[in-house]
Order: sequence, then structure tokens, then C-alpha cells
Amino acid sequence: MTRIISADLTPFGRRDQDLITLCAEASHSTVRKYHDLIDMVIVSNSYSGEYCGISGLNSLITTRLSLDRIPSVRIDNTSGSGGSAILMADSLVRSGLAECILVVGGEKMTEVPGKKSTSIIASLLNREERSAGATLPSLAGILAREYMKAFGATRESIASVSVKNHHNGTMNRYAQFQKEFSLQEVMESRIIADPLRLLDYCPVSDGAASVLVTSDSVAETASGEGIQILGCSQSSDSSAISERENITSLKAVRSAVSSVYSKTGLSQDDMDFAELHDMSTILEIVESEEAGFFRKGEGWKAALEGKTALNGEIPINTSGGLISKGHPIGATGIAQATEAYFQLTGRAGGRQVKAPETGLAVNMSGFGNNCTATVYGVVR
Amino acid sequence: MTRIISADLTPFGRRDQDLITLCAEASHSTVRKYHDLIDMVIVSNSYSGEYCGISGLNSLITTRLSLDRIPSVRIDNTSGSGGSAILMADSLVRSGLAECILVVGGEKMTEVPGKKSTSIIASLLNREERSAGATLPSLAGILAREYMKAFGATRESIASVSVKNHHNGTMNRYAQFQKEFSLQEVMESRIIADPLRLLDYCPVSDGAASVLVTSDSVAETASGEGIQILGCSQSSDSSAISERENITSLKAVRSAVSSVYSKTGLSQDDMDFAELHDMSTILEIVESEEAGFFRKGEGWKAALEGKTALNGEIPINTSGGLISKGHPIGATGIAQATEAYFQLTGRAGGRQVKAPETGLAVNMSGFGNNCTATVYGVVR
Repeated sequence: MTRIISADLTPFGRRDQDLITLCAEASHSTVRKYHDLIDMVIVSNSYSGEYCGISGLNSLITTRLSLDRIPSVRIDNTSGSGGSAILMADSLVRSGLAECILVVGGEKMTEVPGKKSTSIIASLLNREERSAGATLPSLAGILAREYMKAFGATRESIASVSVKNHHNGTMNRYAQFQKEFSLQEVMESRIIADPLRLLDYCPVSDGAASVLVTSDSVAETASGEGIQILGCSQSSDSSAISERENITSLKAVRSAVSSVYSKTGLSQDDMDFAELHDMSTILEIVESEEAGFFRKGEGWKAALEGKTALNGEIPINTSGGLISKGHPIGATGIAQATEAYFQLTGRAGGRQVKAPETGLAVNMSGFGNNCTATVYGVVR
Repeated sequence: MTRIISADLTPFGRRDQDLITLCAEASHSTVRKYHDLIDMVIVSNSYSGEYCGISGLNSLITTRLSLDRIPSVRIDNTSGSGGSAILMADSLVRSGLAECILVVGGEKMTEVPGKKSTSIIASLLNREERSAGATLPSLAGILAREYMKAFGATRESIASVSVKNHHNGTMNRYAQFQKEFSLQEVMESRIIADPLRLLDYCPVSDGAASVLVTSDSVAETASGEGIQILGCSQSSDSSAISERENITSLKAVRSAVSSVYSKTGLSQDDMDFAELHDMSTILEIVESEEAGFFRKGEGWKAALEGKTALNGEIPINTSGGLISKGHPIGATGIAQATEAYFQLTGRAGGRQVKAPETGLAVNMSGFGNNCTATVYGVVR
């Protein structure tokens, strides 16, 4: 088994610092305490070249952290990079190749104009769909329309996800928005891809997050309080969205979650909270179904009825999610792990779920092109 | 233990095909035969965004290969990406998270003008050295000057590495140059960074290579002839070259090689061939010392005396190395593995080493910022 014995992140948002500095900021507290134990550094980042004109980011970060002797690598899976980085770290520790891995994820995106940023991210789409003008936000718009048509979901139910996540974000001092938004404000915000509006989407963000993934034995000699990585699975779907059977399904999410449940012997009923990949409100709803929390086509009702609120049946995105916390691509999956760490060690402050024992994180790359599902638990 | 049961590559050089097509070309023979066994795809690539305007490369490749259901990830460590990808694959298989991983490395670099290409690669240097005008080729020039001064090496000895590698490349149908060059031609080629000339460097290349990394049990049920990954280690050094004690040492290489020897219980004397990271002639010489084949300061004599030739004590870069075969960044470490596969299964044609049992591959990122050393062996 592997553990996370330290976790930290930077405030997300528009930051003056450069990418390397942000990654260092998210890692300093861990490195100060555990530098002698660290035997590998994994950097989760997708777009250091496109946004910052930097390559070899992992080496630049180890040098900045005075960890020159520590081997490092960069892992990329676009928005799902963090989940894949944790899966790799978990595997390296299980294989015995490493015992104590600093996993740091970061992205610096706000220096580039919004339109150019959307186009950089759209470079993950296949050529035909990209030339047809598809972008990630426009695909979410199509998904929302199809979902509403198929299941009779109301526009309000979708917008309610944004209201909830912004509410949760008010209690997270790392969140980009720490501000409530009403249903009306969400539904009257600027239109992006009909029926979705600005506040249905995550913002463009700078930020970094880090966790220390260790073997049980390192965790036991180190003094830090830890959580366990009970299991981690990754699944895939076609990168050609138009070739999928049904845009209202996210096969990679369903498959990754079902695989991690079977690997851990747990089910949706055992989860005390979940961080889902809410690049857009509608994605949280569909993922809440694919993760087994609600039946297909009923996620919207659950959202509307408050079942996914902090005090609901299954609190989803207690951190504020991507929508309120922000979405610096390479940092996102790692920030989900930091939220699991905060929740499971009772450090989540105003957004603390009551005595949680296990939690799920779902981190998607592209538009569900790949997905990792990770189950975290308290140390037993 | 893990094995490689299939290996292939594309011809390296200036290719008309795009990056995804090259990666598919290198993978087709393996995928056709083993598609039902593959449970993970790792893509080794550094610069798909910078050179090709593509992100999410791993998903685009799995879709092209009709492997949509297979989870995938991109691993980057600049020039050392391939070695790190194999280390990750080895670890995923050892941990039991995967059993049969297609590792495909590729880069498409020739569409960008040479000067811009050098500047893209220089983005891995730290900010101060980059602003001072340092590039990877210029650092190699400094290293050559310092090495000659420190150890009395002759210019001819350094150039002889290029002659040898181009000779080896004439027997490799995948090599970018399949052409002999005389010592005089090397020493009279266009000056790049005094004392090094054009033919002291690897060219800019397009190309891809792939290997199938499997568990012993998958290898035994599958029909392919295999080789073993006996061990793989990665080490690191400062990314700030000017802060290293001594530019004539490559600490990451020494440390990675010494670690893999100790892990496998083997030594330099057990190696029957080695693929070293000859981004420049001088680097092969220094690495041949760091790998333990020759004493510090004596690699140049060994090169001059033919000890590293095909019929020498320790044949180095039988494939032609980066200098003759080409250096499509993300493909290079994987192409080293394909050469080990060809040599150890007796498929290396005119450049076949006589009945080799073990071989070493050294794959460096940056200017020795990270290094993986991998020992391959025949199946016993």
C-alpha cells in the first residue's frame, strides 16, 4: 500500500509568479520537512512549452528545490495529468523502484489571452473536430443540450452545480473565487456555448499543488500524518468525440471508477466525498452518474435536491471543484489529492465533511479521453 | 522481471508524415500482433506542442491505433524521455498495475527552421544560462575544449567517434545517414561550436520507435522472441550547468550506470555492447568513461584505438548512435531499446555483435540533467 504523508498547494488564480516558482511554492513545506527521504520527483504538467516557453520543467524544478540529486520526470495527460502522475507514483512505490516521491503539478496559464488559451487546449482534439471549430467549452455545450433533451434535465439543475461549488469555494482559502453566486447570476452570466454560461465553466488559472507519495514503511518512520492510496485506475475512450456512441456518456470515467471499486473492494456507497472533474457544471452531473452515485439521467435531480452539497448524501467537490477553485491544468489532479488529504486528516476547515473514511477523485484528460479514478482512505 | 517481446522503428530523417502517423508506423507491426494483450500505452515525447501544435498526443495515438480502450499517458524528460518511459513501463509491470505496455516514442522536428529548433531545445536550460546565449551545441563545444585541455585529448580522437558511428549507421536501414564520413570530412565540416563541427553533432530528425514491455508471464504465453530488462536506474544532476563542479563529468550518467550495475549484479565487464547518448561526439567519449568502460580521461584514446568499434572491446553505438541514426527527441531512448532488442535477438544484420548476452543503454535528458541507464539481457 502507498500513502500520502504531506500535501500543500498555492492559491489558484491569476498569479504574478512564474511556473517554476509556483511549483516550488507548493512544494516548499514538504521539501523542508522530508528532503532527506525524497527519492524521485514527478512533475504533472501539460503546457509549459505552449504557455511559458519552458521545456525540461522537471529538472528546472528539482534545481530550484535544491533536489538536484533526485531523478525526475514530467507526466502529461492534459487535464488529467495529475491523476496519471499519482498513478505512476503509486506504481513506482509498489514496484519498489522508489519509496518517497514528491509529486508536484502546476500550470501557468493567465499570461496568454483567453482566446489563445482556448486554442492551445483545443490542440488536444483530433484534427477533423478541431478544424470544424470544436473547443472543449463548445463540446460541453453540446453535451448539456443532449443531456437536457435525453433526460428532461432543467437548466436550473445544471446551474445549481455552479452555485454549490462556488459556495464550497468560499471556505477554501486556495480557491480562485471565494465568492457566492446565485442561481440567477449563473444563468444570466455571459453565454459561452448555449445553454452554458460563463459561470458554468472553470476559469483560466495559475497554480500548483503537491503531495508526497510514500511506501508504508517510509510513512511509519516519518512523522507526518498520512492517508492511504487505496487504489488507482485509469481508463480511456476515443479522442474523436464524434465517434463515441453517445456524448451523454463518459465511458472512461465509468470504466476507471468501476475498476477502482473492484480493485479496492469498495463501492459508491462507501465513499464519504468525491472530487469530480467539473471543467463544466454538466460534466459534474454526468460524472456523478458514471461514478455510480446516481442512476443514469438522474444526476441533475440529485444536484437540484442538494444531495451533492456539503451536508448531502455524497458531498461532491467540497474544495469548490475546478469551477470555483480554478483549473491550472497540471495541478488539478494533484489538488484533488490535497483535498482528499485535508478531508481525511480533518484539516478541511469550514468545508470539512463529518468523519470521512474514504473519498473518490476523478480526474479526466481531454473530454474524457482518459480518466483516472483514485480512492483515498484514512490509515488503518 | 520484465521483457521486451516486440520492437520496431521508422526510418529516421526528414519525413513527410506527421507525428501521429510516424508513431503509428513504428507501432503497427506490434499492435497487429499483440493488440489483445496491450493494457497500457506510454508515449515518449517532449515537444509535440512546440514543433507540431498538438497536445494530448497519447490519446490521439491510441485512437489512431484503434486502441481507444487502452489508458495512456505521455512521459517527457526531453532527450531522455525514452529511457524514463521504459523505466516507468518496467515499474508499472513490476507493480502489477499493467502487464503489457506499448511504449512508443516519437518526435517530428524538421518542419521548423534549424535556428528555431535549437532555441526550442534551449528552453530546457535555466533562465540565466539561456539568456547568456547558451545552447546545447555550445555547451558541448565548451565540454570538448575543457576535456582536451584537461586530458590532452586530440581533436582527431573526438572526430573519430563520428567516423565510427557513421560507419555503423551504414549498416542500419533506419539511420538518417547511411553514409561513411572520413576523419578529414568530419574535421573540415562547418564549424558549430569550436572545436566541434557539424559532423560532431546529431542532426535534427523526425522519427518514432516502439517496444512492447511485458511481464514474464505475458511473454511466455505470447509467441514473440524476447529480451529481458535486467534493470533500469535514473539519476539526476543540476540543470544549472555552470553550477556543476566540473563540466567534464556527467554525474547523472555515472550515478545511473553505477546504480543499475549494482541493481543487476553486473559490471561494465559484462556488457557486450552499449548505446550511449552521443548528441555530440565528445559526449560519447565522456559517457564511455562514466559508464566505467574506460578510466577518466582515457575515453578519447580508446575511441582512437578502435576499442569502441564494432569489433572492439566494447562496441559503442552499433546502431550508428544519435549522430548517424538521428535524434528525434522522444524516440531516441526507445530506439536504443530497439537496438538492444535487435542485437540480443541476433537481428542486427551487418552490425551484429557476436553472440551478445547483455547490453547497456544510456539516455540523457538536457545536458545530463537526468539520465537513465538500462541493462538488457537475453532471456534465460
